[in-house]
Amino acid sequence: MRVVVNAATSVDGKLSSREREQVDISNRADFERVDRLRADSDAVMVGVGTVLADDPSLTLDDEDLIDERTERGEPGHPARVVADSRIRTPPDAAVLDDRAESYLLVSEAAPTDFVAQMEESGATVIRAGESRVDLAAAFEELADHGVDQLMVEGGGEIIYSLFEADLVDRLSVFVGPMVIGGREAPTLADGDGFTDEFPALTLENVERIGEGVVLTYTTE
Amino acid sequence: MRVVVNAATSVDGKLSSREREQVDISNRADFERVDRLRADSDAVMVGVGTVLADDPSLTLDDEDLIDERTERGEPGHPARVVADSRIRTPPDAAVLDDRAESYLLVSEAAPTDFVAQMEESGATVIRAGESRVDLAAAFEELADHGVDQLMVEGGGEIIYSLFEADLVDRLSVFVGPMVIGGREAPTLADGDGFTDEFPALTLENVERIGEGVVLTYTTE
Ligand SMILES: NC(=O)c1ccc[n+]([C@@H]2O[C@H](COP(=O)([O-])OP(=O)(O)OC[C@H]3O[C@@H](n4cnc5c(N)ncnc54)[C@H](OP(=O)(O)O)[C@@H]3O)[C@@H](O)[C@H]2O)c1
Ligand SMILES: NC(=O)c1ccc[n+]([C@@H]2O[C@H](COP(=O)([O-])OP(=O)(O)OC[C@H]3O[C@@H](n4cnc5c(N)ncnc54)[C@H](OP(=O)(O)O)[C@@H]3O)[C@@H](O)[C@H]2O)c1
Repeated sequence: MRVVVNAATSVDGKLSSREREQVDISNRADFERVDRLRADSDAVMVGVGTVLADDPSLTLDDEDLIDERTERGEPGHPARVVADSRIRTPPDAAVLDDRAESYLLVSEAAPTDFVAQMEESGATVIRAGESRVDLAAAFEELADHGVDQLMVEGGGEIIYSLFEADLVDRLSVFVGPMVIGGREAPTLADGDGFTDEFPALTLENVERIGEGVVLTYTTE
Repeated sequence: MRVVVNAATSVDGKLSSREREQVDISNRADFERVDRLRADSDAVMVGVGTVLADDPSLTLDDEDLIDERTERGEPGHPARVVADSRIRTPPDAAVLDDRAESYLLVSEAAPTDFVAQMEESGATVIRAGESRVDLAAAFEELADHGVDQLMVEGGGEIIYSLFEADLVDRLSVFVGPMVIGGREAPTLADGDGFTDEFPALTLENVERIGEGVVLTYTTE
């Protein structure tokens, strides 16, 4: 399975302010790029932190992209995936609506009644890892469900874990023309952080989109 | 006085790892760009956090650049400036050596015996602000000392304060091809962070330098 990470940051690497509310970092042209990347993916993943902060639907906006997918015999929208060890995703979260398939990656610590509730509401629950989702194991199961390309849209905790587990194939970052600042604001890669060996990237492309810049990297 | 900020970050906006030890983010070509920027400036500033973490000398490496300056009738190296409210800069810090002029921006809270010690060792002490350096007021005094262009090399606390006080004229960031990660790692702009209005930047230039990218912005 191919894992492509995409996010929008301020020049100082922040995904949002310390209040963890959505900040308009991208511009219209970048929304189109992101929508295209979603349309080219079999599934789109976020961590439960992003579900709780932003309640995104992760579906496509552009009708033409939806039509292209259905003409290829695919579902109109890619599946949504949430990494959510104990099931903190609220039952009325937009990622669980019936516009597209939904997967919950959970750990052994997820209460069985929550799992049952999620399955009843139509979501597919994948269990991997003891107290936290074991992303590598969960991704193998996702691949068995036919996910060849997984797009990851954040946040910083999940993105860090993916780099730590060496699961990222491509990273694209839209760098917006603003400073957010804040010791506590979420960044593109949070977690504990690397201290000795830092995952090295290969710069594949630099593209200016209005006042923003999209940097695209592959991993080694 | 013109204030130009320059720093090197990982793709996730970090200046260093959570251990706050210097990380090799830049490449050789970028060192040359930074040396040129230093040579074109009258003074180079850092916060005391950077002095304590890295003990930089902030002098020029390239002999040709030193010669160019002396031929123009300027000192071989730009002056060094440390924002250091209570004087935590150790007396043997490299920024205080006799290779170039040194300024300490301190607050009213700086112990007078420390001030005297610094002045004895040849540094010029500028007092502004009660418990923390009032950067705007201190910069006016620096301008009176003939500093027309001040380059700021970090770290994230000082850079945030400069944006907060609307003192930045230009920002250039070398984005290196690596992920550092870490909730606690210093970023390009730390401090308390903005929450409502975010300083907007105008993208002036995007330059690829090997596997790195230099983004240059002006402020509005
Ligand atoms: N600008 C953008 O492009 C963008 C995109 C997305 C999000 N955001 C912003 O980012 C912020 C949310 O980011 P975040 O970092 O707090 O949340 P996140 O990465 O979306 O989710 C983190 C949560 O995922 C769960 N998780 C499950 N398995 C994990 C694993 N193996 N490793 C790490 N986490 C795992 C953890 O909760 P459990 O332990 O309960 O499982 C963890 O707290 C919000 O402010 C949002 O607005 C911005
Ligand atoms: N990659 C790069 O380009 C680069 C460049 C520089 C530094 N770094 C890294 O950045 C880290 C240090 O950054 P940092 O953010 O901790 O330190 P910093 O910004 O260099 O210094 C912060 C300190 O400056 C003093 N200060 C005085 N007046 C201030 C004001 N008005 N606003 C804010 N601070 C003021 C404060 O100490 P007092 O209250 O005692 O005055 C404050 O703790 C190190 O890990 C270093 O390696 C990296």
